[in-house]
Amino acid sequence: MESTAATNVAPVPEAEGKVEQNITPWEVESGESGIDYNKLIDQFGCTPIDEALLQRMERVTGKPVHPWLKRGLFFSHRALNEILDAAEAKQPFYLYTGRGPSSEALHLGHMIPFMFTKYLQDAFDVPLVIQMTDDEKFLWKDLTLEEAHRLTYENVKDIIAVGFDPRKTFIFSDLEYVGHMYPNIVKIQKCVTTSQVKAIFGFTDSDNIGKYAYPAVQAAPSFSSSFPHIFGRNSNVRCLIPCAIDQDPFFRMTRDVAPRIGFLKPAVIHSKFFPALQGPKTKMSASTPGSAIFMTDKPDEIKRKVAKYAFSGGRETVEEHRRLGGNCDVDVPYQYLSIFCFDDSKLNRIREEYSSGRMLTGEIKKELVDVLTPIVLEHQRARLAVTDEVVKTFLTPRRLEFGKN
Amino acid sequence: MESTAATNVAPVPEAEGKVEQNITPWEVESGESGIDYNKLIDQFGCTPIDEALLQRMERVTGKPVHPWLKRGLFFSHRALNEILDAAEAKQPFYLYTGRGPSSEALHLGHMIPFMFTKYLQDAFDVPLVIQMTDDEKFLWKDLTLEEAHRLTYENVKDIIAVGFDPRKTFIFSDLEYVGHMYPNIVKIQKCVTTSQVKAIFGFTDSDNIGKYAYPAVQAAPSFSSSFPHIFGRNSNVRCLIPCAIDQDPFFRMTRDVAPRIGFLKPAVIHSKFFPALQGPKTKMSASTPGSAIFMTDKPDEIKRKVAKYAFSGGRETVEEHRRLGGNCDVDVPYQYLSIFCFDDSKLNRIREEYSSGRMLTGEIKKELVDVLTPIVLEHQRARLAVTDEVVKTFLTPRRLEFGKN
Repeated sequence: MESTAATNVAPVPEAEGKVEQNITPWEVESGESGIDYNKLIDQFGCTPIDEALLQRMERVTGKPVHPWLKRGLFFSHRALNEILDAAEAKQPFYLYTGRGPSSEALHLGHMIPFMFTKYLQDAFDVPLVIQMTDDEKFLWKDLTLEEAHRLTYENVKDIIAVGFDPRKTFIFSDLEYVGHMYPNIVKIQKCVTTSQVKAIFGFTDSDNIGKYAYPAVQAAPSFSSSFPHIFGRNSNVRCLIPCAIDQDPFFRMTRDVAPRIGFLKPAVIHSKFFPALQGPKTKMSASTPGSAIFMTDKPDEIKRKVAKYAFSGGRETVEEHRRLGGNCDVDVPYQYLSIFCFDDSKLNRIREEYSSGRMLTGEIKKELVDVLTPIVLEHQRARLAVTDEVVKTFLTPRRLEFGKN
Repeated sequence: MESTAATNVAPVPEAEGKVEQNITPWEVESGESGIDYNKLIDQFGCTPIDEALLQRMERVTGKPVHPWLKRGLFFSHRALNEILDAAEAKQPFYLYTGRGPSSEALHLGHMIPFMFTKYLQDAFDVPLVIQMTDDEKFLWKDLTLEEAHRLTYENVKDIIAVGFDPRKTFIFSDLEYVGHMYPNIVKIQKCVTTSQVKAIFGFTDSDNIGKYAYPAVQAAPSFSSSFPHIFGRNSNVRCLIPCAIDQDPFFRMTRDVAPRIGFLKPAVIHSKFFPALQGPKTKMSASTPGSAIFMTDKPDEIKRKVAKYAFSGGRETVEEHRRLGGNCDVDVPYQYLSIFCFDDSKLNRIREEYSSGRMLTGEIKKELVDVLTPIVLEHQRARLAVTDEVVKTFLTPRRLEFGKN
C-alpha cells in the first residue's frame, strides 16, 4: 500500500473530463482541474456509492453512516452490497487495509483510511487485518530494508493510536509475515502474466522483478486463508477493503484471480484523495513539511502552516471578498473542514458565511485550526500511550474475536 | 531446482561445436551429437576442473577425490579455489543444493547431485542446506500446491536415505521456509530487472509473475543470513553449490548480485547431464518408466529395462561385434558403468573387453545390472528406515554442528 500517493491531489467538484489523468498506486497525475472521479469510476469499472446504499448501510448496522460517506469522501465501491448481504445474514466478514511505511511522521491524509476503517470495525463489529508493506517501500524507494522495517514499527504506533480494538485487530509487517501468506501468493502469481501486470500497473522491463512479484503480496490478505491463526487454513471468509482509489488496480487484479483459485472476491470501498495545503496542484509530501499537517505538529505549527500555506479561495481584497464571497470549491481550509469538521450544522454555517463573504479568509483559517488542533493533540496523547508491549500484541499472529455479531 | 532437466542428455566425448544447443534450467536441447560441454563452459563463462585443482582438493581434504571428479562427471566450477582457500585456512563454509519435487519416485540421475554432495559434506565436514523447490514446480507445472508439497515430503525421504548427517543437514520446503529468507529475497529482487531475467532465463511476457519472482528464491539460500538459526542473522559465510550445469544461470545471477548487497559470491561445482536409457537423444522422464531406472525398481525390473531399453554401442551381428568391438562412447550400459562402477580396474577391464569385441552386449548389460541392483536395493533399505520422525528432524529449523573442522 502506497499511502502518500493516496493523498496527493484535492477533490474538485466538477472536472471538465477533457484533462489527461494518470492514476496508479505509485503516481497520481491529475489534469488541469484536478482528478475527475467520475471518469475514474468509468475507467476502473467500479460503482458510485449512492443514497440507497447509504440508507441500507444504516439499516444493516443500526448506526448512522460515517460523515465521510455522506459527504462523498468515500465515493465508490465494488460489491459492497454483498458485504451488506453477509452482515444482514449474520455471516462473518473481515476488513483489510494497509500502509506503506515510507515516512517517520504521518500526516492528516494518512489517517483517513484508518479513521474510516475504525468506523467500519465499530459499526460491523468485525476483525481487521492491517498490512504494513515495508517490502513494497524497499522495492520502490531509495530506502534500506532495515529503515523500511523500522518505519513499520513507528507507523504502527500511529495506527494503533486511532483506537483499533486489540481483540479484533492484527497488524503485520510483510517482511515478518509473508511466509504465512506464501501459499496464497504463489497461487495468485501463477494466475497473472507479466503482460497483465504491465497493463494494470504500467511496469516496464527496466523495473526490478520484486515489483512484478509484489501485486500478489498485496492481493494475498484479501483471502482469509492467508491468516490461518484467525480464520483457519481452509477458510474462505468474505473481505472488505477500505482504501484510496489509487489502490484499486491491486484489488481489480485480486477479484479477477479469486474465483480461479477458489476464493471469494474481496469487496472494496474507495476514498478520494486528500488535498495538500497548497491545493490540488501540489503534491502533499512527507519530505515537504510545509505541504501537510503532520500528526506530530505542535499547535503553533498547525496555526502557522494553515496561515502561511493553506491555499485560499478568498478574494484579493476585503472589499471584493465581502462583495463576491469566498470560493469553497477551491478553498483548502474549507476542503479540510469538510473532512474534519464532523458537526454538519457548523460546517453548513461556515460554508454559508464564507461563500457569502461575511466570513474572511483569516476567519475560516481560524475555524480550521480550532478543528484540527484537538484532533492532532488527541492523536499525540493516544500515540504516547502505545507502549512497545501494545505494539507487540497487535503484531503477534493470534486468534481474534470473531463471528459473534 | 529442476532436476529432471538435469538428466536429459548423455555426455558425449567429442561434440562438433557446430550444433545448436539451448540449455536453461527448464529445458535442455542438445545438438546432433549431444551436449557440447566445452561450448557450455565458454558460453556460461565458468571454468573447467583440471588435474591441478583435483590434486589440491585431495591435499586440502586429506582424502581421495570422488571418482565423479576424476571421471569428469563433475567437470566445471566457479571459484572452487576460494572454497579450498577457506578450507585450508580453517574458515567455515557450507554446502547448498536442492531439488524440484515433481515426481513420486526418483531415478538414478536424480541421485547424482545428492550422492556427490554427501561426498563433499564428508570430505570437508561442513553443514549443508537442501532446498525443496515445491513453489517452482507449482509455478511451472500443471500441479496443485498440495501435490507439490506432498512430493517434497516423499522426495525428502529419498534424499535423507543418501546418508546425510542430521547434525549437519537442514532440508527445507520453500512453501514452508520462504518467510525466513524473504529479507534476502527482496534484496536480490531489487537488484535484478525484468530485462535481465528475460535474458538469463528466456522468460516472455506470457510467463506468470511467479516465474519472474522465483530466481531470487533459488538465489537466497546462497547467502548464509537466509539461515539465521544456523549461521546468525548477520552472518556472511561462504557457500559452495553442487548442481547440474543447467542450474548455473541462477547462480551466475546470484554472483552478480552478491557484492551489491554485501554478501560473498557463492562458489559452484557443475555436473554434466545423466543419459536416458535410450541414449543421448531421448528424454529421461519420470512419466516414461522405460526411460530410466527408478530407485523403486525391483531387481527383475532393472534387469528387464537394461535388457530392453539400454541403447547399445554393440554391432549388428556377433561376428561383426567380435571383429569391430563395441562403441563405448555411445553405449549406455558403459556410460552408466562409468558413473556407478566405482572400481577403476573393473571399469577399465570392461572398457577393454567391450571395445575389443571380446565382451558382448548381453554381457556388458549383465555387468551393469550387477552394479546397479545392489545400489538400488541399498537405497530402498535406507529409505524404509527413514521414519516421519527422522523427516521432521531434518526439516526443523535448528542449530547445526558447524565450524569444528
